[in-house]
Amino acid sequence: MTFEKIPYKIYLSEQELPAAWYNVRADMKHKPAPLLNPGTGAPMGFEDLRGVFCDELIRQELDNDTAEIPIPREIRDFYKMYRPSPLVRAYCLEEKLQTPANIYYKFEGNNTSGSHKLNSAIAQAYYAKRQGLLGVTTETGAGQWGTALSMACAYLGLDCKVYMVKVSYEQKPFRREVMRTYGASVTPSPSMETEIGRKILQEHPGTTGSLGCAISEAVEAAAKNPGYRYVLGSVLNQVLLHQSVIGLETKAALDKYGVVPDIIIGCAGGGSNLGGLISPFMGEKLRGERDYRILAVEPASCPSLTRGKFAYDFCDTGMVCPLAKMYTLGSGFIPSANHAGGLRYHGMSPVLSQLYHDGLIEAVAVEQTKVFEAAELFARVEGILPAPESSHAIRAAMDEALKCKETGEKKTIVFGLTGTGYFDMTAYEKFHNGEMSDYIPTDEELQASFNKLPQVPGLD
Amino acid sequence: MTFEKIPYKIYLSEQELPAAWYNVRADMKHKPAPLLNPGTGAPMGFEDLRGVFCDELIRQELDNDTAEIPIPREIRDFYKMYRPSPLVRAYCLEEKLQTPANIYYKFEGNNTSGSHKLNSAIAQAYYAKRQGLLGVTTETGAGQWGTALSMACAYLGLDCKVYMVKVSYEQKPFRREVMRTYGASVTPSPSMETEIGRKILQEHPGTTGSLGCAISEAVEAAAKNPGYRYVLGSVLNQVLLHQSVIGLETKAALDKYGVVPDIIIGCAGGGSNLGGLISPFMGEKLRGERDYRILAVEPASCPSLTRGKFAYDFCDTGMVCPLAKMYTLGSGFIPSANHAGGLRYHGMSPVLSQLYHDGLIEAVAVEQTKVFEAAELFARVEGILPAPESSHAIRAAMDEALKCKETGEKKTIVFGLTGTGYFDMTAYEKFHNGEMSDYIPTDEELQASFNKLPQVPGLD
Repeated sequence: MTFEKIPYKIYLSEQELPAAWYNVRADMKHKPAPLLNPGTGAPMGFEDLRGVFCDELIRQELDNDTAEIPIPREIRDFYKMYRPSPLVRAYCLEEKLQTPANIYYKFEGNNTSGSHKLNSAIAQAYYAKRQGLLGVTTETGAGQWGTALSMACAYLGLDCKVYMVKVSYEQKPFRREVMRTYGASVTPSPSMETEIGRKILQEHPGTTGSLGCAISEAVEAAAKNPGYRYVLGSVLNQVLLHQSVIGLETKAALDKYGVVPDIIIGCAGGGSNLGGLISPFMGEKLRGERDYRILAVEPASCPSLTRGKFAYDFCDTGMVCPLAKMYTLGSGFIPSANHAGGLRYHGMSPVLSQLYHDGLIEAVAVEQTKVFEAAELFARVEGILPAPESSHAIRAAMDEALKCKETGEKKTIVFGLTGTGYFDMTAYEKFHNGEMSDYIPTDEELQASFNKLPQVPGLD
Repeated sequence: MTFEKIPYKIYLSEQELPAAWYNVRADMKHKPAPLLNPGTGAPMGFEDLRGVFCDELIRQELDNDTAEIPIPREIRDFYKMYRPSPLVRAYCLEEKLQTPANIYYKFEGNNTSGSHKLNSAIAQAYYAKRQGLLGVTTETGAGQWGTALSMACAYLGLDCKVYMVKVSYEQKPFRREVMRTYGASVTPSPSMETEIGRKILQEHPGTTGSLGCAISEAVEAAAKNPGYRYVLGSVLNQVLLHQSVIGLETKAALDKYGVVPDIIIGCAGGGSNLGGLISPFMGEKLRGERDYRILAVEPASCPSLTRGKFAYDFCDTGMVCPLAKMYTLGSGFIPSANHAGGLRYHGMSPVLSQLYHDGLIEAVAVEQTKVFEAAELFARVEGILPAPESSHAIRAAMDEALKCKETGEKKTIVFGLTGTGYFDMTAYEKFHNGEMSDYIPTDEELQASFNKLPQVPGLD
């Protein structure tokens, strides 16, 4: 194989690192719906959120107008440790698929946390530090977000308390140890440390925990410990804002070689990667400057966009968080136990939910055995061992490339490769041993979950 | 912190990828001693080695004269998937240590195999493929080499049989699954598949295996399976040749900014990384053009350079391999069970052994708790989770930087960061739990091992 003019990896220089995040909300005609107080149904304002979130992050959360928000120098300095991340031309995958399509992927796994989560972790930790706080609390499931936050806190000398879903804490001791290496305290959730944890343990003594429950505990810990605030790795507007660095770099790298994508693909759990990757492209689309097909890929076992309801729902199981309007499967929804990867959150970021509702994004749900087939093929030809989450995007990108093979179209496909799968080998092992199955929730199961959606005072 | 003119990461372009490997033997006045036939004491020539090694690799193994050996285009194309690798200025570490020294590290962990081993794996697999072979056999301990070789073979469509030390096979199932993801067959060693394996199992029914024993099995499997050859990830001259790409890139990146190192540091097990990293610098030193301090860092629990004998010894436990003249602890030497990382081979590459013998390299042995302290500090400030092996070099680099702090000298220190520690979290866990101890072999233990060094016919 010989390489054309476009290099295998397009690296931007440190000078080309974006100077500002791009806030896609500024260009949205229909803004994402505000967070609501679950008791009163009133929109949550700056003062309502101060007990839980850092001040500057609340400002970013509520700011639907400012298009460009400068990235502080200290965050840019940290970004330089692993950014700009490479945009890779998937020459080997193209050859393997024998497709006329040109495939690119933005690789966010080239940092120790192993995923894009670090982009927002450092920003959130920085604003907490600048506010003079002692530390932050958070939850983690598979552990990518907890790892990223631990790294960021270690760098800034900030305390970091992670509530880790108990089943992951026990079954993924390596992730736990990475967080401990970075100095974080890691508590299996539900724990006896919080009221909500004790309540859940009393009601369900044998529970192995859930993400929604760990969120409730982390929020409670932040509210009750002076000098602490809660931080979250996805879903929120502020997180998508920080993750816009992915899309801005991608666009800058493509522009450098005059490449215009036809399709942009990302996996979608809470929406942090997809929201960040597409942001500048979506901006052009919203401003009517250029059109792109944008494709969200979700697991068939947790299909919030393709089968969820667009409604106000709780962000957590303990129902202590504000209500967010989003595509949701219901805050009590838990994917089947045989679901291997992440992307298991019951709802989708309000920004992406609104864009999807407005027809600006497409969505597709894929089954996990097909996802791991794509992951393995990708690993063998492209040499990167992908995280199961990221492999949802690989699957969809391959499917689009194979369609091009049929039609002969030379489309340009860009997808987000959010992270590496080093800590997911148990899932790969299941796949190798033929022990992986697909489970798709039935309509009845989803309906039962929808029936528990909250009644919002003043809304109907 | 603000960054000076030198960027945090120096990336070379793909055009700057070296076009040829550099063979340091061409500039050595005292060449490394030849491999000997253990039965006759005669030097092994091309024909003697053909049953076990690929033809082209034997030529490279025996070539002590050609300084530049072109890198075939196909290998360069593969290298482009992850090379040139970054040379990182350790600004954060310098600040943390408050040292006037300038510290750089060449990071070889930015590929899925997680280490520099891939540089030689792709070369060896390529020559095997070009010779029309069906596959290759090898051994792996911790699994870095086996992973690298599996990746390379998957890329080229070559079969890959890995004999994995049984204790690692059972205790490191994730590494095993990565290799399976890349399509390799992985057999716990000793196995019933080979004569030597059966013999060892009969003599030591409960054995958990050793690297030397896995080498014997892999060599036997190559010799007995038509279309197969044996490949090795370290020690051999050919491996150091391939790894020269590390040093060539490092030198090119430093030259670009007019930086001349005072000290070059690498961890040393079999010597593949250190040999590669130092090669062009050693070339200048051998040719009298410039002087550098070069420092090999080894574990105090497996101190082949600092406490070994410079003598002919077997490369494997089964004594089926040729004899190599090297610093060795004896082919039966096995590091204490509480030794956590790699770097556990009993001997050192003949090239490095000769250079050390000639006073061109210094060596230091470090204890593992000190190594993990350095690893954790490095992870927290530089954001990369280092492999235990690589952390030996970090330890020594930090010690040198701290000496500069005392003396006020602004030395330039370059070290090799060979890989990432994602699969070594069990060792980190031990360290966090205070369960890690240091064991240094006694003089009596080493003497007992030296007493079993082979008597070579015709040599005394």
